[in-house]
Amino acid sequence: MEDKNPEALGQKLYDFAAELYPICRSITGNGVRETLARIAERIPLQISEVPTGATVFDWTIPKEWNIRDAYIKDAEGRRVVDFQRSNLHVMNYSVPIRRKMPLAELRPHLFTVPEHPNWIPYRTSYYKENWGFCLSHNELARLQDGEYEVCIDSTLEDGQLTYGECYLRGQSEEEVLISCHICHPSLANDNLSGIAVATALAAQLSGQSRFYSYRFLFIPGTIGAITWLARNSSAVMRVRHGLVLTGLGDRGEFHYKKSRRGDTEIDRVMAHVLRHSSETYGMLDFSPYGYDERQYCSPGLNLPVGCLMRSVWGTFPEYHTSADNLDFIYPIQLAKSLRLCAEAVEVLEGNLRYRNLYPFCEPQLGKRDLYRSMGGENPSYEINARLWVLNLSDGSYSLLDIAERSGILFSEIQSAAELLASSGLLQPLPRDASLSEENRSDEVTLPKLAVNQ
Amino acid sequence: MEDKNPEALGQKLYDFAAELYPICRSITGNGVRETLARIAERIPLQISEVPTGATVFDWTIPKEWNIRDAYIKDAEGRRVVDFQRSNLHVMNYSVPIRRKMPLAELRPHLFTVPEHPNWIPYRTSYYKENWGFCLSHNELARLQDGEYEVCIDSTLEDGQLTYGECYLRGQSEEEVLISCHICHPSLANDNLSGIAVATALAAQLSGQSRFYSYRFLFIPGTIGAITWLARNSSAVMRVRHGLVLTGLGDRGEFHYKKSRRGDTEIDRVMAHVLRHSSETYGMLDFSPYGYDERQYCSPGLNLPVGCLMRSVWGTFPEYHTSADNLDFIYPIQLAKSLRLCAEAVEVLEGNLRYRNLYPFCEPQLGKRDLYRSMGGENPSYEINARLWVLNLSDGSYSLLDIAERSGILFSEIQSAAELLASSGLLQPLPRDASLSEENRSDEVTLPKLAVNQ
Amino acid sequence: MEDKNPEALGQKLYDFAAELYPICRSITGNGVRETLARIAERIPLQISEVPTGATVFDWTIPKEWNIRDAYIKDAEGRRVVDFQRSNLHVMNYSVPIRRKMPLAELRPHLFTVPEHPNWIPYRTSYYKENWGFCLSHNELARLQDGEYEVCIDSTLEDGQLTYGECYLRGQSEEEVLISCHICHPSLANDNLSGIAVATALAAQLSGQSRFYSYRFLFIPGTIGAITWLARNSSAVMRVRHGLVLTGLGDRGEFHYKKSRRGDTEIDRVMAHVLRHSSETYGMLDFSPYGYDERQYCSPGLNLPVGCLMRSVWGTFPEYHTSADNLDFIYPIQLAKSLRLCAEAVEVLEGNLRYRNLYPFCEPQLGKRDLYRSMGGENPSYEINARLWVLNLSDGSYSLLDIAERSGILFSEIQSAAELLASSGLLQPLPRDASLSEENRSDEVTLPKLAVNQ
Repeated sequence: MEDKNPEALGQKLYDFAAELYPICRSITGNGVRETLARIAERIPLQISEVPTGATVFDWTIPKEWNIRDAYIKDAEGRRVVDFQRSNLHVMNYSVPIRRKMPLAELRPHLFTVPEHPNWIPYRTSYYKENWGFCLSHNELARLQDGEYEVCIDSTLEDGQLTYGECYLRGQSEEEVLISCHICHPSLANDNLSGIAVATALAAQLSGQSRFYSYRFLFIPGTIGAITWLARNSSAVMRVRHGLVLTGLGDRGEFHYKKSRRGDTEIDRVMAHVLRHSSETYGMLDFSPYGYDERQYCSPGLNLPVGCLMRSVWGTFPEYHTSADNLDFIYPIQLAKSLRLCAEAVEVLEGNLRYRNLYPFCEPQLGKRDLYRSMGGENPSYEINARLWVLNLSDGSYSLLDIAERSGILFSEIQSAAELLASSGLLQPLPRDASLSEENRSDEVTLPKLAVNQ
Repeated sequence: MEDKNPEALGQKLYDFAAELYPICRSITGNGVRETLARIAERIPLQISEVPTGATVFDWTIPKEWNIRDAYIKDAEGRRVVDFQRSNLHVMNYSVPIRRKMPLAELRPHLFTVPEHPNWIPYRTSYYKENWGFCLSHNELARLQDGEYEVCIDSTLEDGQLTYGECYLRGQSEEEVLISCHICHPSLANDNLSGIAVATALAAQLSGQSRFYSYRFLFIPGTIGAITWLARNSSAVMRVRHGLVLTGLGDRGEFHYKKSRRGDTEIDRVMAHVLRHSSETYGMLDFSPYGYDERQYCSPGLNLPVGCLMRSVWGTFPEYHTSADNLDFIYPIQLAKSLRLCAEAVEVLEGNLRYRNLYPFCEPQLGKRDLYRSMGGENPSYEINARLWVLNLSDGSYSLLDIAERSGILFSEIQSAAELLASSGLLQPLPRDASLSEENRSDEVTLPKLAVNQ
Repeated sequence: MEDKNPEALGQKLYDFAAELYPICRSITGNGVRETLARIAERIPLQISEVPTGATVFDWTIPKEWNIRDAYIKDAEGRRVVDFQRSNLHVMNYSVPIRRKMPLAELRPHLFTVPEHPNWIPYRTSYYKENWGFCLSHNELARLQDGEYEVCIDSTLEDGQLTYGECYLRGQSEEEVLISCHICHPSLANDNLSGIAVATALAAQLSGQSRFYSYRFLFIPGTIGAITWLARNSSAVMRVRHGLVLTGLGDRGEFHYKKSRRGDTEIDRVMAHVLRHSSETYGMLDFSPYGYDERQYCSPGLNLPVGCLMRSVWGTFPEYHTSADNLDFIYPIQLAKSLRLCAEAVEVLEGNLRYRNLYPFCEPQLGKRDLYRSMGGENPSYEINARLWVLNLSDGSYSLLDIAERSGILFSEIQSAAELLASSGLLQPLPRDASLSEENRSDEVTLPKLAVNQ
């Protein structure tokens, strides 16, 4: 229903992003918990907490960070930098401080974006204890020499790292992993857009019958992905396809970053749905910097996980600044991103192999009312799709293979296959056959995962 | 001799097409028999007949269709549409009818080409009993309301499907299949041109010594190919290379449609002869619509058969209309098409592998008078061909492989190889070695063929 | 040190070429010996001599040629063509002659370059006994009819074929072969430039620790390479990479001609260093005409040897004429050629494989001071190189593979790998593993080499 009204759907997505926007998230703490609570109002969500100090592969769960207030007051007691106006004003994970100091001493702790003098940058210091304020370059310029009162009312203490999972059981235990990070404070495109799209996709899928099981991860970037991977090796072994969702609300064109392997089924599925979308788009080869595909595609895991985004991180000026706000994302862009993800899921779900039961010459389609009755003109689009499916269904071609070789949209190939199967001309092959080679990675085995801990 | 006078050769080809032009062919009936009789005047031809009702794979041999006359008479008794003027005027395979009816009742049985108001379309209804007339759009426009006498003096009765084979036995039982359809009535390019070229090629080859055996099929489209394939599985298993010939007389550039496998020897041979022809041309990937390559390349057979044509079916306005007449084809085009086919045969016949008997460094060509005697200038074309043949004749490269890698014309590579062999530097390898891998398809086996019948 | 002063280095290279320029070299004789003596002043050189009549594969060592003087005197006794002015004036390997003859009789023995009437061509007649003079077309035009005294004071007698080897033993017995021909008389680019660059490269390498052993061959073209290959089959079996060096001093852009296999490590190394040089360049596919790669890449040897040059033989007018003189080569071009060769050697030497010891997710670089401490901005070039090395060091990627896939310069990938290894994150893999597949050619085996002699 919503698919037919993308504006209304987009508005819902946008409204959810707007609801999450004010929360001060980080890689740990109450901002993450509150964000997960809002997601849990929409989809079934299992929350996990892992204590500070726990080891996850080469990493250690850091202390939990929470913040109530922060400001810089001038000599007259005016808040010249105020966390209450924007949570970006505090360097994320800043240790507590309450001191008076002259501007000269304060200055090394102040961060700006000189090229965009009205924007506040987003800075973090997770793994080295530090404190700082981010402010616009114009604000910095207005600061007079003199004494300032500096206050960061934060806590950095033993606690928990928190993440959420929405698991939708399908016919098969084989999993599709959808991952988005939830650690950025008031940044709209990066990554409230991803959270909104992933949540809506999970909600859509929960109402459908599915071959695959789907696991949606809402996790702090890097440390959250590492934590989940380190603690869920049996689930990791079941991942057959995966997507990292991020930056899906801006006006830029789509970009799909391929998995490390570069030619997995999800890579080909995304190429197919993008090629047949009416929009221009970019395909990016894998690189080891980016979002959490960095972890999913680390050499010992090498999972078939790509990353879908619109504008690419680091390539647009608003990236990691206060300009990545609610004006930077658009309902219709969110809706189109969700639709593309849903199309990709449809291809994954429907990508069966069939066997043509009449492999010697063409079967006579005419006597089954599957052909035009009068000869002499070129065949219709539908008949052409049937001929392609019959010709290539020798057991080695999946429907996606056929769509790729014929240049025909997957859904039309799928319709043709289903019609031919219902006419007794094709037989669907067991799903396992189609999954045995590519996706059973040798790399991901429990013993190996255990070795390194 | 004729090769040196392409105009005279082309005229012979054209004259044969003109001789066949008036015959009203269909997929069965006396038109086919008469056409085969004319071919049999030129080359040895074995005629086969298969009775109505026989099963061929998923198909059944249809009734035999014959026609004596057909017309539409107006109220004054004038033939306003007359089969005697063009056999295209009757929808091919029309059931008999003799009735008076008003124009309104007649109209759904009348077919035109509105975009070309003077042309008569070609329409068929083989597998659904129906009747109809084809006429120019202008003729249709001139028809007044009123009563018309409609007559199709045809028979559609149990009989035979007829096809012809010209088999030329070579040193090897391995076969080259050349196939053309013979079911179109007065259409010159599609496919009298193919019949004329195939007949002349068979005549040429019958006078030469050959490694391969050659089988020329003159068959009704689709049902004829299916019939032959279903009844000749042992010959099918011997097919190593094949070509469907069609549409070879018009002024368009050559197009070669690759086999389903896409990289078979015939595909590479055609690419080679086309690349070295002085003309522009097009290479088309396989698709499951087209001519009888549809059947030869069905998934259970997957034969190495491509299709050579000039203008591609369905892409030129004259296609399947009365404008595909004797003015649409040209003697010189037919002659060039024949020459290209003959060149392809020469490459197939000569595509041996050799072993360099002096594989360590170059052998000294100078002492065998195979090199220039004075150094300092670049080597000649002939010497270059010799160096390529020596360098690549390690047993893995065929002469076509060498021609492809070096960019040198096959015939020059072949001459170099023969000269080097006669000088004791190369040894030809047994032919079997070169055929073992690619062409021994696992797919085509008698038991499998039997399964489906 | 010299690397930092390419002009000075280039001048040294140029001066060596100039020193060798006047010597009248050929495929045998004292010119070769003198040339090798000059090389031996710079690097350790082992001289070999092989007697006339010895068999080397399909060839026989020819007679030794030496020349003292040659001229054509006119009726007044003036030397109108004089070997003392240019050793190109005599066709190389001319048999002795001393006779008077009219111009008409002399003319078939005179060679010119009509298109460049002031240049003297370079001609040879090694394997057919003959005599001749080369002169400028203008000189020829000035010759009057009449009687001339013709003298070639040469000897062509049983003797030796002479070549030199500089062998630099490394940690491994596996060899890198660097080959240049030394048979051309006063021709500067072809091939004094190659001799100068090869000699300097050997001098540089002799002062460094090396994994590979390096063998520099200074040999007469064709017969010299064949002789060395025929007499050194055990060394041939140890060749892992090789380069023919020639034509490295002119102003043309670099051209690298790939080995017969086309994708060996040296081919990829040369592509890498050329891609990252600041200059345009050309990559040439292998062809069996050219320099001594013809022999190294003969089918029974198929060594991984390519050829580096600037302007390609036969494609520039000065080729094999007196215009390929000391004005045609430039110190800076020689220096850049040497630097490119040295870079290639560095890649070969450093092209290890490593194993990431933390393959599950990224290891925490921050706690090892290998990452930036503040998040929010894009990573530096160095960090990016580290991420690439970690991500791809699964044992299957060499450092060159990583450089290719990442697009990062090899030396930066290598630095990152060394830093990560010193931090305990990577472990270098034994070298053998990286050499086992590609370079252990089945083709080069002693028994096979023996078969043909």
